[in-house]
Formats: sequence, C-alpha cells, structure tokens
Amino acid sequence: MNKGQLLYEGKAKRLYATEDEQILFVEYKDSATAFNGEKKAEIDGKGNLNNKITTLIFEKLQAAGIASHFVKQLSPNEQLVRRVDIIPIEVVVRNIAAGSLSKRLGFDEGTALPRPIVEYYYKDDALGDPHITTEHIDVLGIATATEVEELYKQGLAVNDILRPLFAEVGVELIDFKLEFGRDGAGNVLLADEISPDTCRLWDATTGQKLDKDVFRRDLGNLTEVYEIILEKLGGK
Amino acid sequence: MNKGQLLYEGKAKRLYATEDEQILFVEYKDSATAFNGEKKAEIDGKGNLNNKITTLIFEKLQAAGIASHFVKQLSPNEQLVRRVDIIPIEVVVRNIAAGSLSKRLGFDEGTALPRPIVEYYYKDDALGDPHITTEHIDVLGIATATEVEELYKQGLAVNDILRPLFAEVGVELIDFKLEFGRDGAGNVLLADEISPDTCRLWDATTGQKLDKDVFRRDLGNLTEVYEIILEKLGGK
Ligand SMILES: Nc1ncnc2c1ncn2[C@@H]1O[C@H](COP(=O)(O)OP(=O)(O)OP(=O)(O)O)[C@@H](O)[C@H]1O
Ligand SMILES: Nc1ncnc2c1ncn2[C@@H]1O[C@H](COP(=O)(O)OP(=O)(O)OP(=O)(O)O)[C@@H](O)[C@H]1O
Ligand SMILES: [Mg+2]
Ligand SMILES: [Mg+2]
Repeated sequence: MNKGQLLYEGKAKRLYATEDEQILFVEYKDSATAFNGEKKAEIDGKGNLNNKITTLIFEKLQAAGIASHFVKQLSPNEQLVRRVDIIPIEVVVRNIAAGSLSKRLGFDEGTALPRPIVEYYYKDDALGDPHITTEHIDVLGIATATEVEELYKQGLAVNDILRPLFAEVGVELIDFKLEFGRDGAGNVLLADEISPDTCRLWDATTGQKLDKDVFRRDLGNLTEVYEIILEKLGGK
Repeated sequence: MNKGQLLYEGKAKRLYATEDEQILFVEYKDSATAFNGEKKAEIDGKGNLNNKITTLIFEKLQAAGIASHFVKQLSPNEQLVRRVDIIPIEVVVRNIAAGSLSKRLGFDEGTALPRPIVEYYYKDDALGDPHITTEHIDVLGIATATEVEELYKQGLAVNDILRPLFAEVGVELIDFKLEFGRDGAGNVLLADEISPDTCRLWDATTGQKLDKDVFRRDLGNLTEVYEIILEKLGGK
C-alpha cells in the first residue's frame, strides 16, 4: 500500500488515499490540542505513542468481537484503516464523573456513576461540538434512530471490554470518546482512534492522570504518562 | 381559603400555605427576570397578566383532558393550586428553532423543525439550569424512567393542544417550558405556569414577538404584548 493524496489534515492525524478506494493511510501527528484548538503544542513522540496505543486497543477490541475500521499498523506513526463515512457524532461513555459532566451535574471529579452513561456531541467545530440528544440528532438528520441505537450499544460494549482490560493493569477508565462511520454496505463501524487523547485514564492506586488532561491542565510530561499506558497495555 | 405562611418566594411568584394541606395559594409578582436572574425589572401589571393568561391556558388544557395543579383564580394576581412535589426538570417543547436551540444546532431563528422536539433542563440555579438527557436524569436520580416517559408524552400532548389554540388566533407557538410535580398519590401532574414568560409566541403574520423576549432583548413594552396575548385568548 502506498500513501496517495492527502485527503484530510485534522488536529491529530492526516488521512491519505491509497491505491485501494476502500483503504486509507492514517498518519498520527505530534500535535497536541485542547479546548477546541485554542491550546496547542508539538510534542515529540506523541504521534508514535497514540498510533501504537490505538493499534493495541483496536486489536483487543477486534479479538473481543468489536469490528472496527482498523486494518494494521504500518510504521511507528502510521496505520491502515477502512474508509468510512464518519457520522458527525462524538459518542462519549462515562463511568466516573469528570470534566464537563462534573460541571454539568455538579458531581465532584472522581464520583462513581451508578451506571455507565452515554452522551452525544455534534462534531461541528464552528458550533463548538455542542452536547446533543437523540431528539437533536433526529432533527439534524445526521443519523437514523437505528444507527443511534447502534452507537449506544456499541459504546457500552466497548466500555464492557476496555474497562476490565485497563482495570487488570491498575488503570481506571473514567470516560472516553468514540467515533463511528458507515462502511460501503451502510454498516455502522467503529473508527477514528482510542488513545489517551480520547480517554480519561487514572492510575487506580495513586489517582495520577495518565491522559490528555496532563496537557489540558499542565500536570506534567505528556509522553511520560502515555508511555506508561503503552507499557501497561503490553506495548513498548 | 386563606393565605397562610409564605412557603417560597421565587423570581416570579410567591407560594403560601392554606388551611388545606393539599392546596397552595399562588401570588404572581410584577418582577421580570432573565438570564438566570442577571437582568431584572419591576413591571406594573405583569403579575395580573400572567395569572390571567395561565388561568385561561390551564382551563383550556383541563377542558382538553390534561390534568394540572390548577384549581381556580382568586383575584387578579392570585390563584389556588394543588400542592405537588416539583420534579426538578424543566421540560421544553420546541416547534420552531429559537434561542438556545438555534445557538446549539446552528439553525436560524424561525426555522421550522421537521417535528416537535422535547428537551430537559435540570432546575438548579447554582449550575445554571444545565441541559440534560434521560441518562443524566437517571444518574441524578431525580425522576424514574416511567416518569420521564410521562413528561415526554405530556409535553407533546400539551403542544398538540396549545399549538392549534394559538394558531387559531394568529399566534405561532415557537416553544415553551413546562414543570411537573408528584401529587400525594405519586401521579405526575402538570404544574407551575404557562404564560408569555414561559412560552415563545410570535404573531403569525408580522412575526412580532409577544413574549418575554421583548424584555430579554429590549424589544419594547412587555405589558403591551402580554395584553395582546390575553385578549387573543379571550381574556381582558
Ligand atoms: N476510517 C475513517 N474513514 C474516514 N475518516 C475517518 C476515519 N477514521 C477517522 N476519520 C476522521 O479522520 C479525521 C482524523 O483527524 P483528527 O483526529 O486529526 O481530526 P480532528 O482534528 O479531531 O478534527 P475533527 O474530528 O473535528 O474532524 C477525523 O475527522 C475523523 O473523524
Ligand atoms: N403546584 C405546585 N406545588 C409546589 N410548588 C410549585 C407548584 N407549582 C409551581 N411550583 C414551584 O413554585 C415556584 C414558583 O416560583 P417562581 O416561578 O417564581 O420560581 P423561579 O424563580 O422560577 O425559581 P425556580 O423555578 O428555580 O424555583 C417554583 O419553584 C415552582 O417550581
Ligand atoms: Mg480527532
Ligand atoms: Mg419559575
């Protein structure tokens, strides 16, 4: 597979065409961004770490029966994925209150929720990725009711696999964001990345934050904590 | 019925006990507030107008089969209601995009929605009445799934009655906010008020705003437009 034309450059990744219409080349960048792009930095090694961590996680999900766009890792910062038509909804699954949920409901960060919950955000930078409901999704016309049910179920299914996986290595999965797309046949397929950029991960013993909050809140060295996650997942 | 002890003073109304445990005395105030109390004014006659309009609307709803807390109007600015345990959820029903929905979804104000939608807001002044979903309601433990279904159904049922009622007199019902409570038997009962303070009402021909946006956005004389609504509903 050869890297063809650059199709999209996002804040964290570049997508390239390949000679196969159905396959994309993903290059993980060293950029860190937060607050809808307001805070930015280049961090050597971040792209490699997220590429490797995402690869490990998608492999474990695939082994556990969750289909995704992931095809294979190509190099330290590159992977091949199946091309999908991204559904412009960020699916957020939460086990423990943190971040915007703590602000919204007045729950202290770290409060365990009685059960995992699923939230939806409209992927629209100009609107600031607003919090939306199934009613909004319906009037926006961005996904069918059947698709939203699928997002909900798959969100919880991914949680049911990742939460114990992290727990076994002493890490608490606080919350995470997923993206999904439609493949050629119109099936809803898990896509994008799953990494410390898109999850909140806390050391189960010390509570140390091992995710992008280290960057958002200036809590230390980002690559150091992403390395910890990579090693705990069995990578190096 | 005699006015007993003052039980609660809100921004728009005062609640008093009566000799009947199950019945409250509601006094509508002349205060106008907006933006979670940041903007304030005293407007002569506003309390009378909202008391009369709410009375007319609850009477029409009752005639159409929607039970509510409303018992009877007592004086220009006073009414009797059944005491309920208010569910801390504002139920917002929308037919046309306006206000926060326009901002959230990027719809121009005045855009007709393909169907009425229902939103929930957590009644909590300290948190700024945040937008919440059925998932949040569940983890907050503020209403059961059955109750939320009831809020949803009753919200749409009220809309199905009020929208044509206003349309007949040349007014478009853009959106409105409802509150519900539990009566002694645990039934969910429509409560609070339904007035130009809690609805968006636009003249169907000219588009003139006939509701609290006149105060929020400094568009003219509030009592003049509330009078128009009262008259159109057959009051004086
Ligand atoms: N399999 C896929 N097929 C097509 N697009 C994908 C696939 N997986 C992820 N994407 C999209 O590729 C882009 C990845 O880039 P990146 O994560 O840098 O974007 P971003 O800066 O987060 O911006 P945004 O997600 O708002 O577009 C995202 O738009 C993502 O939705
Ligand atoms: N039948 C009822 N029994 C008990 N309480 C009621 C009933 N109907 C309305 N209420 C409550 O009475 C209060 C009415 O006061 P008002 O509308 O001025 O409050 P507010 O300033 O809007 O503040 P908030 O609604 O946040 O308490 C509200 O708290 C409302 O929920
Ligand atoms: Mg992204
Ligand atoms: Mg009120």
